[in-house]
Formats: sequence, structure tokens, C-alpha cells
Amino acid sequence: MISRAKHDRMANAIRFLSMDAVEKANSGHPGLPMGAADVATVLFSRYLKFDPKAPLWADRDRFVLSAGHGSMLLYSLLYLTGYEDMTIEDLKQFRQLGSKTAGHPEYGHASGIETTTGPLGQGIANAVGMAIAERKLGDEFGAGLQDHHTYVLCGDGCLMEGISHEAIALAGHLKLHKLVLFWDNNNITIDGTVSLSDSTDQIARFKAVHWNTIEVDGHDPDQIAAAIENAQTSDRPTFIACKTTIGFGAPNKQGSHKVHGSPLGADEIAATRKALNWEAPAFETPADVLDAWRESGKRSVGERTQWEGRLAASPKKSEFTRRFAGELPGNLDAAIDTYKKKLAGAPPTIATRKASEDALEVINGTVPETLGGSADLTPSNNTKTSQMTSITPTEFAGRYMHWGIREHGMAAAMNGITLHGGLIPYSGGFMIFSDYCRPSIRLAALMGIRVIHVLTHDSIGVGEDGPTHEPVEHMAALRAIPNLLMFRPADAVETAECWQLALKEQHRPSGLALTRQNLAPARLTYEAENLSAKGAYELIAADNAKVSIFASGSEVELAVKAAAELNGKGIATRVVSVPCFELFAEQPDAYRKAIIGDAPVKIAAEAAVRQGWDTFIGSDGDFIGMHSFGASGPAKDLFKHFGITADAIVAAAEKKLA
Amino acid sequence: MISRAKHDRMANAIRFLSMDAVEKANSGHPGLPMGAADVATVLFSRYLKFDPKAPLWADRDRFVLSAGHGSMLLYSLLYLTGYEDMTIEDLKQFRQLGSKTAGHPEYGHASGIETTTGPLGQGIANAVGMAIAERKLGDEFGAGLQDHHTYVLCGDGCLMEGISHEAIALAGHLKLHKLVLFWDNNNITIDGTVSLSDSTDQIARFKAVHWNTIEVDGHDPDQIAAAIENAQTSDRPTFIACKTTIGFGAPNKQGSHKVHGSPLGADEIAATRKALNWEAPAFETPADVLDAWRESGKRSVGERTQWEGRLAASPKKSEFTRRFAGELPGNLDAAIDTYKKKLAGAPPTIATRKASEDALEVINGTVPETLGGSADLTPSNNTKTSQMTSITPTEFAGRYMHWGIREHGMAAAMNGITLHGGLIPYSGGFMIFSDYCRPSIRLAALMGIRVIHVLTHDSIGVGEDGPTHEPVEHMAALRAIPNLLMFRPADAVETAECWQLALKEQHRPSGLALTRQNLAPARLTYEAENLSAKGAYELIAADNAKVSIFASGSEVELAVKAAAELNGKGIATRVVSVPCFELFAEQPDAYRKAIIGDAPVKIAAEAAVRQGWDTFIGSDGDFIGMHSFGASGPAKDLFKHFGITADAIVAAAEKKLA
Repeated sequence: MISRAKHDRMANAIRFLSMDAVEKANSGHPGLPMGAADVATVLFSRYLKFDPKAPLWADRDRFVLSAGHGSMLLYSLLYLTGYEDMTIEDLKQFRQLGSKTAGHPEYGHASGIETTTGPLGQGIANAVGMAIAERKLGDEFGAGLQDHHTYVLCGDGCLMEGISHEAIALAGHLKLHKLVLFWDNNNITIDGTVSLSDSTDQIARFKAVHWNTIEVDGHDPDQIAAAIENAQTSDRPTFIACKTTIGFGAPNKQGSHKVHGSPLGADEIAATRKALNWEAPAFETPADVLDAWRESGKRSVGERTQWEGRLAASPKKSEFTRRFAGELPGNLDAAIDTYKKKLAGAPPTIATRKASEDALEVINGTVPETLGGSADLTPSNNTKTSQMTSITPTEFAGRYMHWGIREHGMAAAMNGITLHGGLIPYSGGFMIFSDYCRPSIRLAALMGIRVIHVLTHDSIGVGEDGPTHEPVEHMAALRAIPNLLMFRPADAVETAECWQLALKEQHRPSGLALTRQNLAPARLTYEAENLSAKGAYELIAADNAKVSIFASGSEVELAVKAAAELNGKGIATRVVSVPCFELFAEQPDAYRKAIIGDAPVKIAAEAAVRQGWDTFIGSDGDFIGMHSFGASGPAKDLFKHFGITADAIVAAAEKKLA
Repeated sequence: MISRAKHDRMANAIRFLSMDAVEKANSGHPGLPMGAADVATVLFSRYLKFDPKAPLWADRDRFVLSAGHGSMLLYSLLYLTGYEDMTIEDLKQFRQLGSKTAGHPEYGHASGIETTTGPLGQGIANAVGMAIAERKLGDEFGAGLQDHHTYVLCGDGCLMEGISHEAIALAGHLKLHKLVLFWDNNNITIDGTVSLSDSTDQIARFKAVHWNTIEVDGHDPDQIAAAIENAQTSDRPTFIACKTTIGFGAPNKQGSHKVHGSPLGADEIAATRKALNWEAPAFETPADVLDAWRESGKRSVGERTQWEGRLAASPKKSEFTRRFAGELPGNLDAAIDTYKKKLAGAPPTIATRKASEDALEVINGTVPETLGGSADLTPSNNTKTSQMTSITPTEFAGRYMHWGIREHGMAAAMNGITLHGGLIPYSGGFMIFSDYCRPSIRLAALMGIRVIHVLTHDSIGVGEDGPTHEPVEHMAALRAIPNLLMFRPADAVETAECWQLALKEQHRPSGLALTRQNLAPARLTYEAENLSAKGAYELIAADNAKVSIFASGSEVELAVKAAAELNGKGIATRVVSVPCFELFAEQPDAYRKAIIGDAPVKIAAEAAVRQGWDTFIGSDGDFIGMHSFGASGPAKDLFKHFGITADAIVAAAEKKLA
């Protein structure tokens, strides 16, 4: 049992490391670490199931610092509890280029950083995803292998962001009872007091979405401990509102927005040392305190050892281990290959959203770790295959999530599912609504994690729903995100290939832009090689080509028609299918040059804005695509109206050659 | 007084027009118009203050159909109440190319469409903005000129989207008592019943953010009327939960997701005619019903006439009229000109976020209709000038909104403010969080309305906060949105010019990308002309230039340094400053060719991804910018680390020339 006096000193160790690191960096946020130190100390010293010497233990409790600006809280805890890759030197390098201790916690920089946070609200939704993964895997592998809590600490900002509501409504609905959310209720935001912009009764709000709610003094370890113990026995997720003083301990600045995001300054740090009776110099933690923290870090060693015994004895050991290593089943490639042969036998004229469903039928029959879903567009996204039943609050045996009309919460929770390990989530949504979840897609790319977004209705092919539902700029905007693979397949074969590539990409997220409307098949013969893997490839060759047409997705059909007409007129024309810009950019120079070729006329066709296509056609090439928002009308009328036709490609080529 | 029998027939008129139009289009959503017809009939026939013959009457009640897929509800109401530009022929053209009756309501297509909706949740936040505008203008011009309600109708989808929570929390905080939200509580979403994905107690949720809440049978006109009357006397915004049956009246399909988004089919329409005793053929409304509706459309003529009398007699008439016409005060240009002269006298080395504050100090002193704000980053965005005091729940005399940490709600509410008329809203936020409000920025561009987004901290110049806070792809992603002007000024003069352009752009939204870090002045002499107006201009000329450097924002400083070094070495180098791609694209060919020039070496510099710059430098030009996400560290270290320096520009030029 940790005495109150020892607790206080342990919490103060966090406070001083945090203020010292911010001071040395001359940049950062001391307010949250100082204010939330008591909550974190109770959690990490008494309840959190973790082992710093086995940071990837699959059944550890997860801790997410949603209020990522308080990163020094997390770094201090990792150092104090004995993570080997978080040294006092690392803390001294806070916010310096190349350090592990970035301004906000960056996933992959050091063990114990479970996710990248900073953009507010994301961590709450990540934690919801982790809690979903835990319940799902607990159902599949049993409580002996998966039975842990997910704790998340957030501030006022996280709770004001809309994503928080999507996440907590879903968590309440699903009764994720092993999810515990601490609210650092310090009443301060950057502009001043919370009352400048908000007066929400957060307890009532969480009750409205069926959470267990508790209010505590966030500086009283007994109250915090009692709340955590209450949460652990709840049948619903628990919200613990912790009344705290921001910058607790700094006698002249605490409780004010001045302590939120700026160094305290030497004078205030000296005054804080005096106020908290702390004599150790900067970056030094008294031995008794460090010892106590290191002991806390060893609390779960026994549990972890027992768990390893259970894993070793489990008949599901190899499957469990494979899944957490992120490795795919060995027979996926063969299954895709068989499917491609079948397609070559009878190439279908179908929408690529349907082609995606057909590919998923193969994939979901082979890869048991896929977790499908849709933001309430299941019949439109075609994401639910025959193997999948719906996950419900009482039944997690299913493999399909009805995310509700919550794209942002969905995408952020999917990040959490992947970060948790053991599952590969894929979404369903209209491509236009990638805008609603863009911050989470970006974070997946920044973290380098495998989540897959099925983005159907990818152009004016949407038709009657009109410009609010027709992506125009979305391919360009998504291609602009570093480290994200955007696929736009042209037919059923390319769709299968792109799915294969997305699944095999362990350290990058992917998006698949898929049509609502039917497309003629582009690939008519079986090719063992995944041609989409190079990002762009020659679909129709031509010697001494006068014209090269580059196209993606639904416009490949137009390119093929145009080429037939041009070749028929004696104008040698080749067609390059471009399912993925990013993979093409990674090919050797020689390949890229050969694919771009030296035809005097270069034309690109995509039912979207031009931005990005100059890589293929140069700034003097012709572009057949969109130059404005779309419109409402039957799809065939729209393609004609906006001049995205085979005839337009032919005309552009002939004009240039004239 | 409208009898129950007459009410039913009036509501059924909406139902039949809606199902007939969807059937004819073979596309659309009959479920909501049929389910919400009673609510809409009570509101439009008895309470809504509007005059179809004066659709832009500044003091009309606003009605927003947030559930935009139910567009036939709105189109039916506009036709029935007698809007002259909504004829029965228009209804027959539902969802056809070029018609006024697009799949979702499109602002500008016809009178009475107050905003474009479809992307769910947006309409609620638009309505919050309209209600803010009403209170603000009521305070400024008096209740005689501004005293109206804002009504909004939403579905389950709107309430699940996170933006709804941002909007309702703000509305509750501000006590927007003239805002009334009807919830079409039909328990159905596309995937099936709401219980698949949600179990929120919406009444409790709205109480938690301090709304007045009422539950009614959405098919009982008396209950609906009582609720509206209750709302009109409330001191808080009112949420009216209307229990409805989706597709009410269709005997075999009502109450099921089958009626949400598909035509009913001839058989079910015939069955509905029978069930509702409706003998009129398709698209015909019985004369007694049409008469009753047209009478309803005349209810407010007297009120409108009285209002016109008050306006005519008001000493504020010309100001009120100017403001609602969207015209700027005549002295703005002179004020900007004076300010530019002052800057030329002592060109400051400041961050462009500070330069924006200085420009706003001039603008806000001249243009009384600006309404500033920030998503809780006021001290960082520099958006609050000396003229501005904060708007509070009890005091709307201020001109500054503390939006809270709610970027999405902010941007959508700003759209509503502009749509309402009388005010010009500008925001404050970190540029990275443009992703959080991108759907609303897109809708502003689609609608063609003037809202201005101040996007500070626009690159790795953010420094220590690291990659979660450093825009890399955001300039490209925002430039990809049609009809949006993205400005990235290089110094204080360009910042003032870009502000002037954004304000004068009555029918397009603008974004200003501004630095955190100080920049050397680029423009050292006074120029009367707004050089930024052409999007790109020659900052440093050179005869027979060997090198052209194109740059925006903070990289103009690097371009100028590099040019000095190259010119010093005898390599003729010119510099083009590019504050706005979109305005440049609109210049005559001859100007664009002259600006791009024919120097053999073309280099672009922007601390962001290359995408889009090939327009200036071609696909074989050199680009000095970002090729990955950023990092956490002091800004100067980051620019060096990522190779965005004057030296890098010089080296690239010399390498190409070698």
C-alpha cells in the first residue's frame, strides 16, 4: 500500500520532470501533467496492468493520453516506471529534433506510446477501438488470453470536439465496460475559462449515452482509487470526472490558462519547489521516489508470466501469435490467384463496389482477422460478406460493425483497433465523407498503420444525389497525404489486386475509391502477376505511339474505347491504367520513364480535378476530368455534360496532333 | 384555424408530391417527406413567418432542412405555399440535370432554399449560425428590424454526426432561444433500425447542454402546435422530438428502411392513394388543398409590410440595407491603401499571423459587419482586435465569438451566419485543423458564399508541436476544392492585400494560410495596385533570366535570398511570389505565360507537398518542399533538416545549370 505521503511525492516527481523538461525545451505544456499527476499516479502505481519490460504484452491494459499536449505526463510515467527506452536523457531532449520525446506523443517513437495524439478527441475514439478489439478478441480467444482494460485521459478540448460524441455514443451503445475515461476537469482552455465557450453538464451528457459516471476530487488518491475500482465492476463504460487544478503546485500560476502551454519560468519553478517541498535539482528524482515508481512498474510481472503460460498451453497459440504479429494467413495469395483465374474466365461488367464485395468474399473467407463495417451505408458500400454477422452490445462473435452515421468516430476507432493488434479493420463509407474523417485517416498515415477505407460512390457517377455527394477533389486531397495508398481500380481484377496490396501493406493505411456504376472489364486475360503493384502499367501497348492515355478507375473504360477508335484511325495509341499514384512513384526511374513514354500527345482521364496528374502528362498535357463541382442528374447525363467521354479523349488527341 | 381534416389533406399533398417526384425520377428519398409531412405542415401553415413573394425579406424566419435527402419535403412546401420560381414542372424535373430540384437542396437553385444540405449534421450547425446572426443583428439594429426564429428539421443521422454535438453545445451555452430543432424520430437508418448502432437518450442529451426539450407524436398536429408555441416562449433553444413513422401512409413499406431511399413503386403508390383516400392523379393537388396552402403562404404579408414600414422609418435603413446586400463600406479601400503606405515606410519583420492581426485592426475599424472568432486559439491566431469584445450568452453587442474547441461546428455556423446575411464571419484556427472542418469549407465553396478562414501555423514553422500540428498536405488539399480561394501571403503587405481580396470576394470563401514564425518583408516599396490580385506576380525581375523561382508565404524570403546569391554569381534569376493559385489560374493566357516565363531552370519553394506546383515549374522542374510528414523540434532546425533553405534553392539551380 502506498501512503499518502509517498503518493504525493510520486505525483510530484511527474510534476517536476514535466516542468523541468518544458523549461529546458522552452516550449510545451506543463499545465496538464501537473494537474493530472495524481490521477495518473493512482492509475499507474496501483491499477494499470502493464510491464515496462514487455511493452508489447498483448493482454496489457492500454493507456491513451487523448490530451496529447500533456505529453510530458506520459514520458515521465514511462521513465519512472522503468521503460528501458525512455531515459532521463530522453526527457532532457524533450521537443528536440530526432528525440523520442516529441511535442506530442508519437506512436513508434518509444515503447508505451500506444497511439499518436494531439489532435483533440482522437484518443477517446482510439480507445473505443481498442476496447472493441479487446472484447472481440476476448470472445474469440477467451478471457485467458484477452481480458484487459483500456484507460484514456482527456481534457475539455477532447470533449468539445464532435468526434468525442460519436465515440462515446458508440461505446455506450456497445456497453464497452472495460473502457474507463478520465476527464481532467480543470475548467481552463487556451482562451481562458471553459465558461467562455461551454456550459455542458458532462455527467448528464455521459449518462445520456448510458455510461457509468463518477465525480471525484482529482487530487485525492483515495477517491480516484475508489472510482477506478467502481469502474472495474461496472457493466458499462465509466466516465470519471476528476476536478483538478491545472498546473497544480505552481503557487502563482496554477488554475489559470497561463500555465497551459508555456514554460513556467525559473522563478515560478523555484516557487513550486518550495511550495511542494521538493529539494531535488532539475531532472533528478529522489531515490525513494524512483524506487517506489520502479516497484510499481513490476506489479504485473506475475500476471504477465501466468498469461505467457496460458498462451503457451493454448491450442490457439500460433493463431494468436500470428494475428498480433500482423502477419496474414499463408493461403491468401493462392485464394486471390484462384479468384483472378475465375474472373478471367468470365470477366464481369460490374461496379467496383460490387467487385470489392466479391473480392472481400474471398478475403473474409481466408483472413479471419478482418473486421468489416460501414457508417450506415452497408447496402451501398457492399462491405458485409456472407461470413459476417453483426456485432451487437451483447454479442461480439460477429465480424461486422454498424458504426452508425459516425465517419470520424469510425476511422479513429479503426486506428485504435489496429493499434491494439489482432485485427484488420476495414470501413465502408461514401468517398465524399472521407472529409468527415480526414483527421483520422491522416493519423493512420502518420503512425504507419494498416487500416483500409472502402470509399464507394467515387465521382459524378453518383448521379442524382448531386454535388454534395460527388467527390471531385477527394482523390487529389487524399493523394496529398503522405504515406497513404490511394487505390482507384478499373475493374474486378484490379479491385482484387488492390485489396491484396492493401492487406499486405502492414505499415501504411489504404483507401479504395470505388464506383457506384457498372464498368466494363479492363483486364480480359489472367495474369499471375499483380499488375496493380507497380501503381501504373501498360494496359494497351502500341509501337511508336503517337498518343498515351493515362486513366484510373471508371475512366479506364473510356480510355480503352478512345484508344480503339484512334488506333482504328491509324493513330497509334497506348493506354496506361493507373490504380495507385503512390506505388508508381516508388518504382525505379527506368520503369517510370517507360510507362510515361515519349508519345507526343499525353492525355489523362479521371472524373476528378487535374491536380497531381501532371506527373504523367506534364503541365502541357491534356486532361479530361472535372473543373468544378458536380451536379444532380442521371450519371450518364453528367459524364456527357462534363465532357468526360471517350469522344472527348479522341477529340483532344486529334486536336493536339492537328 | 385549420381543421384536422384539412391538415391531413395538406400534409398528404406533400406526401403525394414527394412520392410522385421520386417515382418519376426513379431516384430519391420518399421516407422523410412522408414521415415529416405533419410537422412541416403545422410549421408552414401556422407558425413560420415567411412570404413567398418576398423570399429574401431579412426578418423572415429561417427554415433549414438538415436532413437534406428529404429534399422533396422542401420543394413540395415551396411549390404549395406559392414561391413563384418553384412550379409543378420543377417538381417533375426532380433530380434531372439542370433542374432547380436537385437531389439535395442546393442553395441558389431556387428561392426558399436557405442552405445546401445533404452532408448530415451541417444544417443544424448552419441554423445555429443563423440564430447567432439574428441575435447579433437584433442587438445592433433593434427588434423592430431583426426578431425572427430559426427552425431546423433533422434526422437520426444528423444527431449521430459529431458536428451536431458541437453545434448544440454551443447553442445551449449561448441560450439561442429563437432556435427550434425538430427531430424526425423515425427510428430508421439505412442499415436498419437505429438500435443497430445507437441507443442515445436524445432528450437527456439535449438537457445536458441546457436545451428546452419536448416530446410529441409527430403525426398529431395539436401536439406539434403546442410544442412550437412552447418553444416560442422559451429562454433556451428548443428540441422537439417528433415520433414519426418513416414513409407514413405507404401501407406495406412504412416504418421500414425500405422506404428511406428508394422509389415506392407503382403498386405501393396505388396502395398509398387508397389508404390515404387520395384520388388526385400524380402531381395534381386538389384545388381546396392547394388553396389552403396558398393562403398559408400569405399569412405573413401584413407582418412583412409593417416591417418594411419600420425599415423605411429607421435611421439605420441604409446601413441595414447595405449590410444585407453584402456590400462593403466605401472607405475600405482607402483604409487599406493608407495602411499599405504606412507599411512601406517601415516594413516590419513579423509573422503573417501578426500581420493579419494588424490588417484586421484596420479592417475591423472600417467594416462593422465583421464577426471574428477562434476555435479556442485566440492568442495564437491573433484574430481579436481592439474593436472586438466577446459575445456571451447574455451580451451580443460584442463582435467576437469564442467558438470553443469546435472547428467543424464553427465553420458550419459561419456558413449559416453568411447565409443569414448582414455579417461577414471570419474564423481562427490552426491550419492543420482545417481537416476537422473541411466538409463545411467545401459547402461554403459549393454555395459560393463569403466566409473567411484564418489558418495560422501553416507549415513545419510550427516547430516543437510536431507533425500532428504541422500542415504538409493542407495547401494542396484546400487548393483542390473548387471555388475556394487559398491565400498564402509572404509578408505584411501581401497579408493586407489578401485580406482585401477575401473581403471583396462576395461569392467565394477564402482561406488565409499564415505563419507562426517571423518573416522578413518581401515588399519594400509602396504599390497602389493590389499585386496579389493576380495570384502571382514578379517580385524580382531579371533580364534573360536563367532561373525562375516561384514561392509562396514563408518561402518567398528564401527565394529572395537565393536569387540574391545567384544574381551575385552572375546567374540571372527572377522571383515570382504566388499568394493565390486560383486567382492566377483566372488571368489571361498572356499574363500567365509571362509570369511563368521561359527561364531554363524553374524552381518552386513551399514548405508543403509539391502537388499542384507543376503548373508553374512543369513536371521536370525542381521543388524545394516537403516529401513526408514533419517532425518535432525548433522551427529553424526543421527547415534545415527538411532541406527547405535558400542554400537548397541555390544548389538546385546550380545543379540544373551545370
